[in-house]
Amino acid sequence: MSNSSYAALVASFTRLYRYQHLAAMVGWDQAAMMPTKGNEARGAAMAELQVLMHRTLTDPTLKTLLKEAETEATDNATRASLREMKRVWQQANLLPERLVEASSLAGSRCEHGWRTQRAANDWTGFLQNFRPVVECAREKAQRLAEASGLAPYDALLEQFEPGMHSTQLTHIFGEVKSWLPGLIREVMDKQAGEVTLSPDGPFPVAAQRALGLEIMGLLGFDFDAGRLDISLHPFCGGVAEDVRITTRYREDDFMQSMMGIVHETGHACYEQHLPRDLVHLPVGQARSMGIHESQSLAFEMQLGRSPAFLELITPLVKKHLGDQVALDSANLARLYSRVKPGLIRVDADELTYPAHIILRFEIEAALIAGEIEAEDIPALWDEKMQVALGLDTRGNYRDGCLQDIHWTDGSFGYFPSYTLGAMYAAQYFATLRRDTPELETHIRTGNLAPVTGWLDSHIWRQGSLLETPALILQASGEALNPAYLRAHLEQRYLADSQ
Amino acid sequence: MSNSSYAALVASFTRLYRYQHLAAMVGWDQAAMMPTKGNEARGAAMAELQVLMHRTLTDPTLKTLLKEAETEATDNATRASLREMKRVWQQANLLPERLVEASSLAGSRCEHGWRTQRAANDWTGFLQNFRPVVECAREKAQRLAEASGLAPYDALLEQFEPGMHSTQLTHIFGEVKSWLPGLIREVMDKQAGEVTLSPDGPFPVAAQRALGLEIMGLLGFDFDAGRLDISLHPFCGGVAEDVRITTRYREDDFMQSMMGIVHETGHACYEQHLPRDLVHLPVGQARSMGIHESQSLAFEMQLGRSPAFLELITPLVKKHLGDQVALDSANLARLYSRVKPGLIRVDADELTYPAHIILRFEIEAALIAGEIEAEDIPALWDEKMQVALGLDTRGNYRDGCLQDIHWTDGSFGYFPSYTLGAMYAAQYFATLRRDTPELETHIRTGNLAPVTGWLDSHIWRQGSLLETPALILQASGEALNPAYLRAHLEQRYLADSQ
Ligand SMILES: [Zn+2]
Ligand SMILES: [Zn+2]
Repeated sequence: MSNSSYAALVASFTRLYRYQHLAAMVGWDQAAMMPTKGNEARGAAMAELQVLMHRTLTDPTLKTLLKEAETEATDNATRASLREMKRVWQQANLLPERLVEASSLAGSRCEHGWRTQRAANDWTGFLQNFRPVVECAREKAQRLAEASGLAPYDALLEQFEPGMHSTQLTHIFGEVKSWLPGLIREVMDKQAGEVTLSPDGPFPVAAQRALGLEIMGLLGFDFDAGRLDISLHPFCGGVAEDVRITTRYREDDFMQSMMGIVHETGHACYEQHLPRDLVHLPVGQARSMGIHESQSLAFEMQLGRSPAFLELITPLVKKHLGDQVALDSANLARLYSRVKPGLIRVDADELTYPAHIILRFEIEAALIAGEIEAEDIPALWDEKMQVALGLDTRGNYRDGCLQDIHWTDGSFGYFPSYTLGAMYAAQYFATLRRDTPELETHIRTGNLAPVTGWLDSHIWRQGSLLETPALILQASGEALNPAYLRAHLEQRYLADSQ
Repeated sequence: MSNSSYAALVASFTRLYRYQHLAAMVGWDQAAMMPTKGNEARGAAMAELQVLMHRTLTDPTLKTLLKEAETEATDNATRASLREMKRVWQQANLLPERLVEASSLAGSRCEHGWRTQRAANDWTGFLQNFRPVVECAREKAQRLAEASGLAPYDALLEQFEPGMHSTQLTHIFGEVKSWLPGLIREVMDKQAGEVTLSPDGPFPVAAQRALGLEIMGLLGFDFDAGRLDISLHPFCGGVAEDVRITTRYREDDFMQSMMGIVHETGHACYEQHLPRDLVHLPVGQARSMGIHESQSLAFEMQLGRSPAFLELITPLVKKHLGDQVALDSANLARLYSRVKPGLIRVDADELTYPAHIILRFEIEAALIAGEIEAEDIPALWDEKMQVALGLDTRGNYRDGCLQDIHWTDGSFGYFPSYTLGAMYAAQYFATLRRDTPELETHIRTGNLAPVTGWLDSHIWRQGSLLETPALILQASGEALNPAYLRAHLEQRYLADSQ
């Protein structure tokens, strides 16, 4: 009798997981496969599914079951499972079905329109679809905030990085702003004298894809449980049992896509190694978006752009793309650590990337707080871009505030995850390097097991058994410490040799 | 007030349509995209969706609403809509949820296993997964039969071809059996003296795909509302707003895939031209599987394999696959009308195809009636194949009873649709030819509008507004008349010149 409430909860959350499976697959399809005219029917079907998931979570019996199960729970694992169920349940129960459906429809429409509006630099057209998205997000934030006592923006942040609040972010990001501009200048001065060779294309899509697949294999991606496809905005989607990553190819530049694949493979390996016996429950799923980005950035920034890894993959690069001096590993390492302020976040180098994130964090926080309106974004974007990276974006919406997909479906509060992820990743690798003699040699010679093994045992197979601070403490012996990111950047970009 | 019941029904059936959208897309994905290890989670999610659709249809309020709406209905269109809603509703309400879920899971498992078991010629392994499928299908047939007063197999047939019963099929097919073997012999004797040239491959997949896409365009496929992909077993899936057709390529033989694409494009055009304002309701959806096959076979057999059409596409074939004498249109016409009894249904020529269908009809009817068991199928298959086409399939399950996907998920009653479709298609073209002077000239010169326009106005845009016999009568001026298929075959295969 004693576990009957928990068993009933497991049944409900398992059903929810199956609905999420459907949502994930049709969501991936929408981005990677769907032809234009399919969008309206797809949007309606996805909204119907959102309503259904919301109904599953707002079933009034869950409240009683959660209360009963909490009294019955005797072990830590069950308590952790209940904690995560309750988090998901609370979020849903604070939002009316009408709002869930309206958000889904508005997001679907705005994202779909954005796909052509971005290319057409059509801010006015975008704004029409975007206003309802902002309206839904604000109502959502307001409702979540009232119940939790958090500020509205923090209530949205909680969905992506539970426990992280804007005061802490403002503090962390404020510190980054204190040293980042100086570091960027210093590195640019240092690199001004460096000679880099540009790889000479074209690099056919088929060859780039074959190279990407081989690198994914090297990194441990399980191709019987996932795929690589193409989408306008690269992402990692699907479900833990069937992970779908995407990229986009440019025949004149393979570097972006290649490193993008390394990044998405980091997300994918996390999903593929979540605790399989728990993956149908919230406790067995990814900890947070910050931790998710910490996996992709551990792969991309800590491992992927390191000279040792680039030395390892250089023969593969040359095998698929042809032999030329510009593809020598030392030149690739210089290219992949080249610092150059630019307009586009996804094209940004590792060093200027945080500036893109901080700008977005500040704008979205102001937008949700009602301090600015949607139409104020371009001006604010221009102003902040000028200060942060000295770049002019006036009138260039395409490469300014229209460049990202995140806001189109109302994912406000997501952006900070990228820089938090970079910080976590730097902290993992500091620990890993301290505990693993000759780590660089292992990497250079193709033994990636010390890296993936460490991530697997400390992060992947932990799912959401621990809350983020406890997970980071257990993995690295201390709480989130942004100093590791700064140290990593100074080491990679200023040290004379690495 | 007066239309409130009908409006409530429309709301329920619209929700059902959105769930069907999800089912169609993840079903397509399972066949065309999904990696192996995704299958278990996919199967669970799809079964959950089946249960949900079943629940939507068994909501007790629907019964009252249908009754009320029937009294209120004043126009023919609403009455037709209610008739089709009721058909769907009745089917669902006769089946318990447990059976729906068990059927979905058993079908998913059996189909997935079949993908490797077929290749491995593993009948024993297949049988283990297949027995539960048969068990579910028999229970389903029994329950539907009890309520409708039909025989169990007829109750399954009703799902694919409403109104068609096995007595009528036995009669029609019996007649075909009376003239088909003689005709096959006669044609083979005639063709024995013919010289045909074999196209000399390899034909790269990319070139075949480009050719296929161009032919799809010629036939009127809307690429903004659909896609062409690859699957083990070609099919037309997706939804009316986003139609997904598949093919499979062999580099040593482009002919199969090319004509397969013409076939699936026939299915696709039907879906793409269903009445858009009604497509979310049963009355706006495809009439039946027999009518669906009549569209694919109108495209493939009546149009696609005709000398006029082959003459039209020959320049495209040569453009993509290279110029060689074997690709001359006269030779292509000879190749595409070459009669040669073979083991594989999907590889069969137009003339021997009905023999494959009649064999399957007889076996599945006996299986559902309980006259034979699953393990009896191979022996019966061998025996019938020997009689029908003089071929030995003993021990060769791969090319015998394991060759088709249909039975793996319990779609018993589907096979007759192919030959019914061929009969309907021959009847349409007899009408079309009678009413259109110079039809062949139009086709040869690339004006396919007389064909697609006729199909659009007589079939596509009719959806399910009429029942099948009325639809056929309205389109062709008479009831289903198998004599048109015989006349077409004698004309194409025995006339001295066409
Ligand atoms: Zn990422
Ligand atoms: Zn077909």
